[in-house]
Amino acid sequence: MAAILMNPRIPVSVLGATGAVGQRFVQLLDRHPWFEVVALTGSDRSVGQTYGEACHWIVTSPMPDWARSIAVTPTLPGTAEKLAFSALPASIAREVEPLYAQSGCVVCSNASAFRQEPDVPIILPEVNPDHTSIVLHQKESRGWQGFIVTNPNCTSTGMTVALKALQNAFSLQKVFAVSLQAISGAGYPGVPSLDIVDNVIPYIQGEEEKVELEPRKMLGQVQGNAFRLADFKISAHTNRVAVSEGHMVCLSVEFTRAVENMQEVAEALAHYKAPAINAGLPSAPKPVILLRTEPDRPQPRLDRLSGAGMTTVVGRLRSDPLLHARMVVLSHNTIRGAAGGSIYNAELLFKQGLISA
Amino acid sequence: MAAILMNPRIPVSVLGATGAVGQRFVQLLDRHPWFEVVALTGSDRSVGQTYGEACHWIVTSPMPDWARSIAVTPTLPGTAEKLAFSALPASIAREVEPLYAQSGCVVCSNASAFRQEPDVPIILPEVNPDHTSIVLHQKESRGWQGFIVTNPNCTSTGMTVALKALQNAFSLQKVFAVSLQAISGAGYPGVPSLDIVDNVIPYIQGEEEKVELEPRKMLGQVQGNAFRLADFKISAHTNRVAVSEGHMVCLSVEFTRAVENMQEVAEALAHYKAPAINAGLPSAPKPVILLRTEPDRPQPRLDRLSGAGMTTVVGRLRSDPLLHARMVVLSHNTIRGAAGGSIYNAELLFKQGLISA
Amino acid sequence: MAAILMNPRIPVSVLGATGAVGQRFVQLLDRHPWFEVVALTGSDRSVGQTYGEACHWIVTSPMPDWARSIAVTPTLPGTAEKLAFSALPASIAREVEPLYAQSGCVVCSNASAFRQEPDVPIILPEVNPDHTSIVLHQKESRGWQGFIVTNPNCTSTGMTVALKALQNAFSLQKVFAVSLQAISGAGYPGVPSLDIVDNVIPYIQGEEEKVELEPRKMLGQVQGNAFRLADFKISAHTNRVAVSEGHMVCLSVEFTRAVENMQEVAEALAHYKAPAINAGLPSAPKPVILLRTEPDRPQPRLDRLSGAGMTTVVGRLRSDPLLHARMVVLSHNTIRGAAGGSIYNAELLFKQGLISA
Amino acid sequence: MAAILMNPRIPVSVLGATGAVGQRFVQLLDRHPWFEVVALTGSDRSVGQTYGEACHWIVTSPMPDWARSIAVTPTLPGTAEKLAFSALPASIAREVEPLYAQSGCVVCSNASAFRQEPDVPIILPEVNPDHTSIVLHQKESRGWQGFIVTNPNCTSTGMTVALKALQNAFSLQKVFAVSLQAISGAGYPGVPSLDIVDNVIPYIQGEEEKVELEPRKMLGQVQGNAFRLADFKISAHTNRVAVSEGHMVCLSVEFTRAVENMQEVAEALAHYKAPAINAGLPSAPKPVILLRTEPDRPQPRLDRLSGAGMTTVVGRLRSDPLLHARMVVLSHNTIRGAAGGSIYNAELLFKQGLISA
Repeated sequence: MAAILMNPRIPVSVLGATGAVGQRFVQLLDRHPWFEVVALTGSDRSVGQTYGEACHWIVTSPMPDWARSIAVTPTLPGTAEKLAFSALPASIAREVEPLYAQSGCVVCSNASAFRQEPDVPIILPEVNPDHTSIVLHQKESRGWQGFIVTNPNCTSTGMTVALKALQNAFSLQKVFAVSLQAISGAGYPGVPSLDIVDNVIPYIQGEEEKVELEPRKMLGQVQGNAFRLADFKISAHTNRVAVSEGHMVCLSVEFTRAVENMQEVAEALAHYKAPAINAGLPSAPKPVILLRTEPDRPQPRLDRLSGAGMTTVVGRLRSDPLLHARMVVLSHNTIRGAAGGSIYNAELLFKQGLISA
Repeated sequence: MAAILMNPRIPVSVLGATGAVGQRFVQLLDRHPWFEVVALTGSDRSVGQTYGEACHWIVTSPMPDWARSIAVTPTLPGTAEKLAFSALPASIAREVEPLYAQSGCVVCSNASAFRQEPDVPIILPEVNPDHTSIVLHQKESRGWQGFIVTNPNCTSTGMTVALKALQNAFSLQKVFAVSLQAISGAGYPGVPSLDIVDNVIPYIQGEEEKVELEPRKMLGQVQGNAFRLADFKISAHTNRVAVSEGHMVCLSVEFTRAVENMQEVAEALAHYKAPAINAGLPSAPKPVILLRTEPDRPQPRLDRLSGAGMTTVVGRLRSDPLLHARMVVLSHNTIRGAAGGSIYNAELLFKQGLISA
Repeated sequence: MAAILMNPRIPVSVLGATGAVGQRFVQLLDRHPWFEVVALTGSDRSVGQTYGEACHWIVTSPMPDWARSIAVTPTLPGTAEKLAFSALPASIAREVEPLYAQSGCVVCSNASAFRQEPDVPIILPEVNPDHTSIVLHQKESRGWQGFIVTNPNCTSTGMTVALKALQNAFSLQKVFAVSLQAISGAGYPGVPSLDIVDNVIPYIQGEEEKVELEPRKMLGQVQGNAFRLADFKISAHTNRVAVSEGHMVCLSVEFTRAVENMQEVAEALAHYKAPAINAGLPSAPKPVILLRTEPDRPQPRLDRLSGAGMTTVVGRLRSDPLLHARMVVLSHNTIRGAAGGSIYNAELLFKQGLISA
Repeated sequence: MAAILMNPRIPVSVLGATGAVGQRFVQLLDRHPWFEVVALTGSDRSVGQTYGEACHWIVTSPMPDWARSIAVTPTLPGTAEKLAFSALPASIAREVEPLYAQSGCVVCSNASAFRQEPDVPIILPEVNPDHTSIVLHQKESRGWQGFIVTNPNCTSTGMTVALKALQNAFSLQKVFAVSLQAISGAGYPGVPSLDIVDNVIPYIQGEEEKVELEPRKMLGQVQGNAFRLADFKISAHTNRVAVSEGHMVCLSVEFTRAVENMQEVAEALAHYKAPAINAGLPSAPKPVILLRTEPDRPQPRLDRLSGAGMTTVVGRLRSDPLLHARMVVLSHNTIRGAAGGSIYNAELLFKQGLISA
């Protein structure tokens, strides 16, 4: 990122920094124009070592030098950070994220722990930036100085961006989704290699439930102090395949409004514009949706890094014999669907004035 | 196969014997109790060589000794064979299979060339053995001494077996199918490795059309001299994944009759019995359908050889938020879905008296 | 295995039966003509459950019915078994195997714990069946009623069989070995999939040390109460690759005796005969060594099941610019190189009268 | 590349631009500060189409816009280019490259066609930039206005860089090399996926011969009008593995000079400096050699993009029981080992004044 750095930048922590998603945070926050990492937290096993020592680095670009020498600290709110990026497992997130929020920190969490809470938003800035308004209620009702904002499950991410464009244009009625998910979605060590070499695992624990609910929350509305789910149903099959990064979803959708032809649907996708608040956010995808017209795209290996891994790639758009349209959606699961998504959310919150410099 | 060999056995040819499916025919016909290979045909490049010389053998068990020394002959009907197994590409099948049929040979074809013809049946003996009756009309109207019977596309195969059990029990209305298909389905050399290592290809030319039509023909009925398609619709997405053998299909289905609970559906699948004519057919799968109850099965690497690769494996049966039920179906694409399927068809025809010894 | 079962068969235990190698023992002991499984042991987590409940079965053929209902017991010598097959991790094997041996049991171990002990033999029946003589000294000096016999590390296995044939014919001087090893060699869950999809891991902890020592012990001699290592040196690089089963080794060798040409070396390999004591052992590989002459064999996927996974496959034999000859060796790592090897050893011991019926 | 573009840049052609290596040329020449693509050539099948139409683009970054609209032309020297990058197959390169050279063009070739000619150098600028002096003799003796310079085979590339550092420090005597090569080395479609999923191919046609000769030519010397090969021997086994990009070589080496300890060898590698002429070449790797000290590195997926894919990564340095030292070398096969290597060579030639602006 060649951008000019804000001075001073906002001090941030990465919680659970030694894991697979934590490492992505460290990579993506390298030279971030607005945020500066001041703390990296880890489990007891890591505390006391430098990040370079504690971390079995598995990102394909080298560990940034500044990160190498940071001493890993316990996952407890300090005084340094104003913003915490959480790459914690759900069970630990449930315990610890509230402590950070209570102490006045803004938590941008990749964990699923609070996504279903009625006062915690799941945010995709290009989809539902207005949902962050619920945090005022969250702070008040919980008596916190800070708050928690989550990003969706990695599989929900890309399909929700595509569904948003379709929802706006035609109003959704039914969504049928079958995923082919990358192994990195399960973290490290994650999926045993004997389960995936020459194989597919047609099951990911808890995943279908998330994929059937989260898009409806994000495409729903804040009503008073709660969310009204969007008024369509989703059926999801989720599968793990031998791909390192990039979640693919085969999507068939039925609309409320009639569509004349697939060209109309293509335009709704290709011309989708993120809400105006997205202008100038460093991680905002360019374009939001890339519609490919080749018969055999998107493909994970070739397309996952579109828009620096933040763009949602859609292809194979065609009519469906049972519903209205079908397509394939691809999204980078550890960038757009995890660390990059949380950072993008923090940028939104900063621009909205919900994080102060 | 330790079975006692019929004496004499029926002399058979394998057309296109050097390719991937042709090799499977040779492997599966080794010591077949009823059929004896007397000719292996190949393209100009192979003719004149022995099969051992001409064939780049890629089956994991060794080439049978008897096959090694057979001289590859041109793909033209001879006088030796009464039955021809066709592993030809569709374009060649279209030219050559009629020549065999005309000359009095029964052609059991794995090619797609004639599957959509109104007088050519697509047969799965455990599903629609009665459809072979159309061949009398086929012979008569075309003036052939022999006839052509086809087996379905490899992806249609397993899902049609499962759909048959469900059709019988609950009558089908809608079928959503998303496949994760093995690379061997594309033959050899087939899929380039750069397309599949760390990747998924969300497109297989012509495949979705076949998957949306063939099951309806097989689950339909012979009416006079033609087929009436079964009265439900199918939507298919087909994908290629990094699996050597075993096609998986994520299936969501809606029934005409109401189902009380998933237990009813489970029983319909697990208790499905092949029509009585299947008794004693050497290749008949045992069981026809294996219903697995673990949360993460079937898996291609672990389950594809169930019932010697002839059984249809179903798992992850659960209710569907949009339709009635969903499940995962696995079938071995080069055994049940290709060469094994054609051989099984020939066994049926022999038992039906349509091939004479 | 259609063989007639001995009556009564020898009662055996499998120690550590729920792991990857333990499962292979259960599979390979199914209908074994001489041995009958009477106990399956597991860790605290498994004890009290049936084997069907406790075991996440990852073998591609189904779990035998008799195994499914056996109650998993703690890994402690009982009164039932005369023979124990050990699939224990080295650290536990070190504690427990002596207890079994002390109590009078013969332990055929796949663990590395005792391989380097001066009174414990590493046995490949087709290579060094005479080395079992050391167990008399082992029993005496340790005051045990039973004894421990080990099989080599999975990578050492195939290369030692090939080296034995060459040692006999030409006497070895130098051996240069680079392995490409299957993921199953690391057990389950073992290698994380993120480490192996689109990747190679050029390191396997402790492996090179084993590969450089074990073949020299097996090709050495029993002298008094100890082993004299064979008088040649080995250099090993060991690598993990994305293969499910089958360890490949690129081997370059220098002989003491001059070789005229590669034909001589080919004959030494292809004509190698196992010592006479191997006759009639149910698991003895047929042939011991399969020499392939195609330019691109052996290959793990195509050749690992040669001789039911017990045969050592050698190919690409050619002269070496620095040493005398080079070749590629393939051996099935969880059959010949693990469970199958231990069972084969037990068969040898029974025929040698070291296990009584 | 944010560098300032030279004005005007040198007009260049890419020969065989639609293939896998040709595409890499197009990608790596995008915004090259010194070279500007003016022609993209292809086979009859492609001529007449735009590059965007003719090319099945398989590089993971998008096709540059300027390339998309260039009309593919036949592979024949025109008047536009001063420099031609050849991604041609060897058989075509043998016919066509001389035509370009004759017409006054400098040909930087990735093809093997002329590598063994006594007057054609194989160049790695960080190893043997002085070898380009032979081109004066080449021009004269062949009566060409231009000349041909080649870069080595992709597997020879990385190991030669490492060997150069060792040659300088300790003088080489023997080299054992076993490669684990990426599928992209075979181009597209290249290796069939059925050959590589769950498999290794222990054979690459013609590769071992190249790997045993090319490093010796590059580490040898220009003597009069010919090359004297370096005075050491190489034994190579070459294997294909399921990796998309990045060739790994397990290397064992014997020196002429004694080494005290591995630290000395480590320093020779880590401190190796490219000859001074490399200063300022846009593609010069930074660093030339990256020595990693973790026990399990380099790994293709994690390390291939070190130094933008131009750096040679060495790891696992340790002593060898037979020779002096052993190590693992990794090099990006389509960047450093192919297109990037040719471009780097052209940069060298330009700086040497052998290409005029």
